Amino acid sequence: MIIIMERDATVENINAVTGLLKEHGFQVIVHEGDVHTVIDALGDKTTLSANQIDAMDGVKKIKFIREPFRLASRDRKQEDTIIEFSNGVKIGGANRPVAMVGPCSVEDNFEGLLEVAVAAKELGCEFLRGGAFKPRTSPYDFDGLGEKGLKYLAKAKEETGLLVVTELMDSEDLDLVYKYADIIQIGARNMQNFKLLKAVGKCDKPIILKRGPASTIREFLLAAEHIMYNGNENVILCERGLKSFDSAFTRNLLDISAIPVIKKYSHLPIIVDPSHGTGQRYLIEPMAKAGLVVGADGVMVEVHHNPARALSDGKQSLSIPQFKEVFTRINNLIDTLHLEKSMSIPNVE
Amino acid sequence: MIIIMERDATVENINAVTGLLKEHGFQVIVHEGDVHTVIDALGDKTTLSANQIDAMDGVKKIKFIREPFRLASRDRKQEDTIIEFSNGVKIGGANRPVAMVGPCSVEDNFEGLLEVAVAAKELGCEFLRGGAFKPRTSPYDFDGLGEKGLKYLAKAKEETGLLVVTELMDSEDLDLVYKYADIIQIGARNMQNFKLLKAVGKCDKPIILKRGPASTIREFLLAAEHIMYNGNENVILCERGLKSFDSAFTRNLLDISAIPVIKKYSHLPIIVDPSHGTGQRYLIEPMAKAGLVVGADGVMVEVHHNPARALSDGKQSLSIPQFKEVFTRINNLIDTLHLEKSMSIPNVE
Amino acid sequence: MIIIMERDATVENINAVTGLLKEHGFQVIVHEGDVHTVIDALGDKTTLSANQIDAMDGVKKIKFIREPFRLASRDRKQEDTIIEFSNGVKIGGANRPVAMVGPCSVEDNFEGLLEVAVAAKELGCEFLRGGAFKPRTSPYDFDGLGEKGLKYLAKAKEETGLLVVTELMDSEDLDLVYKYADIIQIGARNMQNFKLLKAVGKCDKPIILKRGPASTIREFLLAAEHIMYNGNENVILCERGLKSFDSAFTRNLLDISAIPVIKKYSHLPIIVDPSHGTGQRYLIEPMAKAGLVVGADGVMVEVHHNPARALSDGKQSLSIPQFKEVFTRINNLIDTLHLEKSMSIPNVE
Amino acid sequence: MIIIMERDATVENINAVTGLLKEHGFQVIVHEGDVHTVIDALGDKTTLSANQIDAMDGVKKIKFIREPFRLASRDRKQEDTIIEFSNGVKIGGANRPVAMVGPCSVEDNFEGLLEVAVAAKELGCEFLRGGAFKPRTSPYDFDGLGEKGLKYLAKAKEETGLLVVTELMDSEDLDLVYKYADIIQIGARNMQNFKLLKAVGKCDKPIILKRGPASTIREFLLAAEHIMYNGNENVILCERGLKSFDSAFTRNLLDISAIPVIKKYSHLPIIVDPSHGTGQRYLIEPMAKAGLVVGADGVMVEVHHNPARALSDGKQSLSIPQFKEVFTRINNLIDTLHLEKSMSIPNVE
Repeated sequence: MIIIMERDATVENINAVTGLLKEHGFQVIVHEGDVHTVIDALGDKTTLSANQIDAMDGVKKIKFIREPFRLASRDRKQEDTIIEFSNGVKIGGANRPVAMVGPCSVEDNFEGLLEVAVAAKELGCEFLRGGAFKPRTSPYDFDGLGEKGLKYLAKAKEETGLLVVTELMDSEDLDLVYKYADIIQIGARNMQNFKLLKAVGKCDKPIILKRGPASTIREFLLAAEHIMYNGNENVILCERGLKSFDSAFTRNLLDISAIPVIKKYSHLPIIVDPSHGTGQRYLIEPMAKAGLVVGADGVMVEVHHNPARALSDGKQSLSIPQFKEVFTRINNLIDTLHLEKSMSIPNVE
Repeated sequence: MIIIMERDATVENINAVTGLLKEHGFQVIVHEGDVHTVIDALGDKTTLSANQIDAMDGVKKIKFIREPFRLASRDRKQEDTIIEFSNGVKIGGANRPVAMVGPCSVEDNFEGLLEVAVAAKELGCEFLRGGAFKPRTSPYDFDGLGEKGLKYLAKAKEETGLLVVTELMDSEDLDLVYKYADIIQIGARNMQNFKLLKAVGKCDKPIILKRGPASTIREFLLAAEHIMYNGNENVILCERGLKSFDSAFTRNLLDISAIPVIKKYSHLPIIVDPSHGTGQRYLIEPMAKAGLVVGADGVMVEVHHNPARALSDGKQSLSIPQFKEVFTRINNLIDTLHLEKSMSIPNVE
Repeated sequence: MIIIMERDATVENINAVTGLLKEHGFQVIVHEGDVHTVIDALGDKTTLSANQIDAMDGVKKIKFIREPFRLASRDRKQEDTIIEFSNGVKIGGANRPVAMVGPCSVEDNFEGLLEVAVAAKELGCEFLRGGAFKPRTSPYDFDGLGEKGLKYLAKAKEETGLLVVTELMDSEDLDLVYKYADIIQIGARNMQNFKLLKAVGKCDKPIILKRGPASTIREFLLAAEHIMYNGNENVILCERGLKSFDSAFTRNLLDISAIPVIKKYSHLPIIVDPSHGTGQRYLIEPMAKAGLVVGADGVMVEVHHNPARALSDGKQSLSIPQFKEVFTRINNLIDTLHLEKSMSIPNVE
Repeated sequence: MIIIMERDATVENINAVTGLLKEHGFQVIVHEGDVHTVIDALGDKTTLSANQIDAMDGVKKIKFIREPFRLASRDRKQEDTIIEFSNGVKIGGANRPVAMVGPCSVEDNFEGLLEVAVAAKELGCEFLRGGAFKPRTSPYDFDGLGEKGLKYLAKAKEETGLLVVTELMDSEDLDLVYKYADIIQIGARNMQNFKLLKAVGKCDKPIILKRGPASTIREFLLAAEHIMYNGNENVILCERGLKSFDSAFTRNLLDISAIPVIKKYSHLPIIVDPSHGTGQRYLIEPMAKAGLVVGADGVMVEVHHNPARALSDGKQSLSIPQFKEVFTRINNLIDTLHLEKSMSIPNVE
C-alpha cells in the first residue's frame, strides 16, 4: 500500500498515518517529495482496512500494489481451475469449450423446450439453459414459471442427458434450484447481491457468475471472491456485455478483451454470452466466435423453438434451424483450430 | 408503438406483424416509405409484449411513445407525492427539504452514534441514518452489526426523537428491519433485486430507493414501479452517483440533472446523497447545495464521530465539527432561498 | 513514480528498470514484496518518459504521485487566476460570476442577434456569444456564416458594449477570429486538437476551453496545459456535459462536481454551460444555479430571438422572454448569496 | 420522422408543427393518443432540419426512421466498397484481410524502421505505418519528426515495396503528407475535426478514419459521411477502442461487435487496431484474431525494433521477434479459415 499525502498535509497528519500503520504491524518508509510526502506501507495485514487510512486527515490517495482478490487470483493458484461433472464433462483448462443453449425463460410448452434440447444434443452441446425465475426490468413482463419450469428442465435432461443451468434469484429458493440444477447461475443484476453470493458460496454446486453490466473486472473478480471465500471454489465467470453510451445498434457492449485479461489474472474458467451481450440475433455467431478465439471456455446462447412468440428475449434468440446452421459453423471453428486453451493463452508478455 | 421494418423485409414479414397486432386489438396503420416500411400500432394493450413484436422476422426496431413506467409517472398523477411521518415530518411537494445524517454503518460504539444523533437533532435534521447490514464489494470488509446495530439506532431515536433510516439487503431480514426502521432503504446495488423490491412493495413503510450506479433514469423509475405495483406508493428516490470513465478524483459522478428531470416526469420525491455521490468529504457541501438548488426534497449525508477510525466510508464522512459548520451553511441556504418546491420547479418549458 | 513489476519479473528485468532510472538521475529504492517487486523512483526528471519504463519487460504498472499538469496546477500557483478585460470586467477569483449569452450560431439576421444582445445588456450580462464557424456532426447541417457572422458580432458589440466570445475551429482562421473576438473559444470536439491548442497558446487573447464529452478532468487540464505551455496563461475552462449511457432525457450529463474538483486542483477559472450540458431548455435554469452554487466563475447560455426557427440547437436555447425570466432569478440567486468565490470554496478538507 | 408532442401540448403547438412540415412538402398524419399526440411526417426533404422541429413549443421528442448517414449506408450501395492500390493490393469485400504494421511514431533511427519494414515484408504484410506528426495528451511528450519522418517512410517503402500509412493532424500539412502517403490516416481525436475531414474529402487518396474514443457508431459513420460528401468515397474505418469505466487492465475497450454492426449498415471497409484498442502487448494477438473472425478487412498493429526505448506507445508495441511469432499465428488463422468476407457476413437475420 502506498499512501500519497496532500500537498498541505501537516507533520501531525503524517505521524498519525505512520503511527496507525506501525500499530498494525506494517513496515513504514516515508519519502518527502518536494510537493507530496509518500508513505510506503509494506506488509499484508488484514487487521487494518485501507479505508481507514484513506479517511485520515491529509491523505490524498492510496495506491495498491496487489489485486484485492486473492482466492480468485493466479498469484495464488497458477494452474487453471477445471470443473468436472458427473457425466465426465469438464469446463476450463485445456478442455474443449462447452456450449450452453436454450430459451431465455422456460415457458409453459414442454414440447418446445424438448425440441431445443434434442437439437442441442445432436449438435454436441453439453448444457441446457433456461430460466424458471426471471429478473425483469418492468413489473409488467413475464417473470418465470417457478418450480414448474425447473421440472420441465429436469424432464428434458432425463430425455437428452444434457446438464441443466438455471438461475437463482433469491436465497430463499436455493434448496429448490439446487435440487434441479447442475450449475446454478447468478444473474448480472445480482452480481453484487452479497447475501446471495454468500448463500451459493456455501453450497457444493458449480456457480456461473454473470458480470454486472457496469462492473469492472476487479469488482467482478471480487464478487467471485465472495463465493469462494464462503467455501465454493467452483465458479465459472460469464462475460455478457456492458452498459455503454451507444445502444443504438446493440443492447450491450460485449467486452471480448475481458476474457484474455481475466485468463491472465485469474485461474477461473470464463464463458461468453453473445445473446445478452449484443441483444441481436445476427451478432450471435460472430461474437461467439470472437469469444472462443480469445480463449473462452464456453458459449451460452439463447435458442427458442419460436423466437417470435418467445415471452422474453426473442430478438436475441436463434430459432432451431438458425441454431443448427450457426453451431455447425461454430463447432467447425472449434475443431479446425483445435481450440485448446494452451493455444489461446497468449505467450507474448 | 411504432415498428420500423428492415429495408429487406418481405410482404409476409409485414403481414405477420400487422396480423399479430390486430389479433391483440391494436389499430394498425402502415406507411410504405421508399426505404423502410413503418407500422403505427395505436392502443395500449397489455396482452402483447413489445419484445414479441421485436423478435419477429424483418423487424428492425421498435420505438415507444409512452414511458414504460406508469404508476410513477406524472402522466398518471400530476401533483407531487408527499410522505408524512407520525411526528409530522413530511417529505416532498412544497415542504422544506429534509436531512438524513449518520454513519455509513452502525459500529459497536453506541456513544459515538449518539453523539452524531444529538448534533443532528440540534441542527434540525429529521432523520438518523446508519447501516446494520452492509453490502461490501470485498468479502474482507466489515459487513455490519446486524440486529445489534438496529437496536442502537432505536435507542438513539428514543433519546433524540430522530426518525430512523436503515438498509434492507435481503427479504429474509424484512421483519427485523421493519420493526426498527421509519424508512427502509434499498441500496444502489439492489436496485434491480426484484424479489426485494416485491417484498418491500408489500409492506407499509416508506422506502428509499437508491439509483444503481449504471442505471438509466428509465430503469430507476421502473424499479420504483416494481415497488408501487406491489402496493407501496411511498417511494423516495435517491440520486447517489453514477459509474463514469473518470474516477481519478471522485468515486462516482453525481447526476444532479437527474433531479429536475425526474421532477418533470414523476411525482415521487427525490433526495440527493453527496457522500456516496462523490466519495470525497470536501465535495459534500457544494454537491448537497447543488442538489437542493435544483429541487431535491432532502439530502443524505454521512457523519461519523471519528471518520479516521470509521469501519466504512470514512473518506466521505464529515466529522461532527465539520458537520456543524457545513449544515449551518446548508440550513442557511435553504432558509435564505425559501427553498420551497414551487420555486424549484422550472417554469420554462 | 512507483513501478510495480509483474509477479514473474526476473532479476534482469528489475535491473534493467533500475539501471535506466539511475541513468536519468532518479533516486531508486527497491522493495521486494512476497508477490511483486516495487520500485520507487524519486525525482522529477523530464528527460525520461514514463512510457519508456512502462514498455520494459516485466513492468506491470506505473503509478504517479504528481498530477501530470504543472502550469495549470494549484501546486505551482495557489491564488486564483483572474482575467481582466479592457472594460474592467473580470473573470475568476472572488469576482461576481459572469454571464455569456447568445445564439448557438450567428445567423443571417442581424436584427435578431441585436435583440438578444440588447436584452443581455439590460440584464447585466457581460458577454455576447455566437458561432461564426460551427462544427456539425452531420455534413447536411448549417455550418456558420464565417466572417459575415463575425462582423455581425462586432456590430452588436459596438451597439451594446458587450464583449464577444466566438469559436475558432481551425488554425488557419486564427487571424480572422482574433480580430473580432474578446475571448476565443475552443469547442469540445477540438479539446485535443493539439495544433489548434498550440496556435491559440501563442496568441494573447483569453481562451475558453470546453471540456471534451469524454475527457477526464486530467485530460482536460492537460489540454489547458498545452495552451499555457505555448505561452498563454489566460485559459477559462468550461464544463459542458459528458457522454453517458443515458441519453433518453438529456443530451449530455453535466458534471457539476467537476467544478469544485477543478477549483481544488487548479487555479484557472471555470464556467458552466447548461445549454449544451443538458440539451433541454427547461434544465438551463436549475443547472446554471447548480453550477453557480458550487463555485463556477460564470455561465454560458444559449439565447435565440426565435428558437423554433434557429438553425442550430434551438431545443436548448431560451427565447428572449424566457431569458429575461430565468436570468432575473439567476441574478437574484447570485446577489442573495453574495456568491463570492471565497464562500464557495469549501473549507472542509 | 415521427414527432411526439408533450402531454400538455396545445392545439396551437400541434398546428405550428404540422404547418411547418407541410410548408416544406412533408405528408403529415396526426394521431391523437390518450396521453400524447404523435405526428408522422413522411418525406425526406433536406430543406428542413429536424432540429428546428425539435425546438418548437410542445415537442417532446423526435424519432427518426432512416439512419442519418446516406452515402456511407448500405441502403444506398449494397455491395462492399473495395479500395485498390497501384500495386494491386485491395482492401474490402471478399479480399484477404490486410496488415498494417510499424512503430507508433517514426523516430530518428532509420535502421530501426527499416528492420521493422523488412520483417513486415517477409511476413506478407502490405502496409508500413508510422506517425510523423503525433497528437499527444501532454505537451511534455515527443510529437513527431515531421517531414524527416515522412522521408524515412518513403525510403523504407522504396526498399521493401510496402505501401505507407501515416497520420495527418492539420489541413495545413495536407500537401506534405499527400506526397508521401498511400493512405492518409485521421486520428481518433480528430474524428470530429470537420475542417480536416473536409480537406481530406477533397483529395484523391484513400483515408483511414479512426473511431473517436467516445463516438457512437452513428457519429463515426457521419464523420465518414463528411469525407464522402466532399467527394472522397475511399474511406477505411478503423475501430480502436472506446473510453470505458474500467481502465485498470486495458487502456481502451475494443468494441469488437462494432465490426459486424458496421458491416451490416455500411458498405465501407473496416479494420481493427488492437494496439491502441487495448494498450497491452499481450492482448494484441487475441484481439487481432477476434477482429478478423468477425469480419475485419485488416489489422493495424504497432511494431517497434526496441519497444522499451520507443518514444511513444512502447507498452502496446510488439518487438520484432514477438511480431514474427504473433503474425505467423495470425496468418495461419487467416489461411486456415479462408477468411473471406463472404464467410464472415453472418447470414442469420
